[in-house]
Amino acid sequence: MRLKLTIQYDGTEYSGWQVQPDVPTIQGALEAAIASIEGHRAPVFAAGRTDAGVHALGQVAHVDVEKALAPAVWARALNAQLALDVRVVRAEEAPADFHARRGARGKLYEYRAWTGPVMSPFVRRYVTHAPGLYDLAAMREAAALLVGHHDFEAFTVADRDAKTTERDLRRLVVEAEGDLLTISAEADGFLRAMARTLAGTLLEIGRARMPVEAAGRALVARRRGLAGPTAPAAGLTLVRVDY
Amino acid sequence: MRLKLTIQYDGTEYSGWQVQPDVPTIQGALEAAIASIEGHRAPVFAAGRTDAGVHALGQVAHVDVEKALAPAVWARALNAQLALDVRVVRAEEAPADFHARRGARGKLYEYRAWTGPVMSPFVRRYVTHAPGLYDLAAMREAAALLVGHHDFEAFTVADRDAKTTERDLRRLVVEAEGDLLTISAEADGFLRAMARTLAGTLLEIGRARMPVEAAGRALVARRRGLAGPTAPAAGLTLVRVDY
Repeated sequence: MRLKLTIQYDGTEYSGWQVQPDVPTIQGALEAAIASIEGHRAPVFAAGRTDAGVHALGQVAHVDVEKALAPAVWARALNAQLALDVRVVRAEEAPADFHARRGARGKLYEYRAWTGPVMSPFVRRYVTHAPGLYDLAAMREAAALLVGHHDFEAFTVADRDAKTTERDLRRLVVEAEGDLLTISAEADGFLRAMARTLAGTLLEIGRARMPVEAAGRALVARRRGLAGPTAPAAGLTLVRVDY
Repeated sequence: MRLKLTIQYDGTEYSGWQVQPDVPTIQGALEAAIASIEGHRAPVFAAGRTDAGVHALGQVAHVDVEKALAPAVWARALNAQLALDVRVVRAEEAPADFHARRGARGKLYEYRAWTGPVMSPFVRRYVTHAPGLYDLAAMREAAALLVGHHDFEAFTVADRDAKTTERDLRRLVVEAEGDLLTISAEADGFLRAMARTLAGTLLEIGRARMPVEAAGRALVARRRGLAGPTAPAAGLTLVRVDY
């Protein structure tokens, strides 16, 4: 049976999604939990291979399992094995051809920054401390330049796996509530480091360290050096994957 | 100069407010930070001595310091010494007779419980996992029995320091938003374990493990055994102290 899993995690203690030797990863934790139930290891495929320190509110993954358990029982059994910072919030039986990554039609990421001088102890694991006064209008103007179907080569890092650097950025929204600034990015897919580079660029523009036009200029020139820095991983959360 | 400090902390890693030998405490962390600036230790007095694992969004404390620094500079200097899970959000010069505990006219505590079957990894340090279906109307009915000026002996534990077990419980409000249930308690003061015992009692009533009348019965009988359990510390936050 192919299982579709919806997963939440606090990525603080993990070296990202993808299995690597000798470090804790989300994929590694899930595969170990599945192995403890199945008796053998099975690969788990995620919609997005989040970087070290990045969080997920709605990561989606698939895995083929043999034990004849109902999906809800699978979810409970996996949660009983996993540490509390990784939770399977839903398990469903999926068609045999369901593929978490290839089937994804869109993803929503949220980047959160704390703009006040004193960082809140309660969100420090999930929000980047970037104190300052932000010009939201400038950030929104820059965001409007980036939305659309573009070549986002300036907003990514070299990645052998990516066949094209074109993506459809459907929404890029800047919101502020008190000291919390949230940048929501929705696209058909994200290149490596793209969500964090979009956020890093908008944050620089918001603090007037880069002009509004820099965003469009980087896009057109397709030069990574013209975009802003990659914002720190802790501020990023994969919120939703759409199929 | 007497400093009034407003402090936030994630209490997870601390054995409560009060200094104890060989364990990390909030008071100990603050006194060590002050000593590193003053050159000698000075006692810090809090409005409420929170228990191990309890958090604060607006704890208030006072301390007498000698170094001639502006209060805002004190705040920055203390934050530079403190771990990121304790933050001084404001420092003000206070009258020489200001006393954080004796001067407090009221306090607001919030108790938060996650009622869904799967605990959110993001709030697990600040919210207690208490899955179940809750009868909010029953909880509110019980809360109404508790509000007012009463002897709360049934809702506390033995405490040599408390001269009286009478308190004025001004508000006891139950709210739910999705899987998050919040119990807000406002009083002129709280006895030891009182906020958590009020919460524990309402949670038991909400899950129909105790009848609504149990709350009033415990109050009148002044018998700890008739109230509900002391809810786990992690769910409790001292939100505000009023002067």
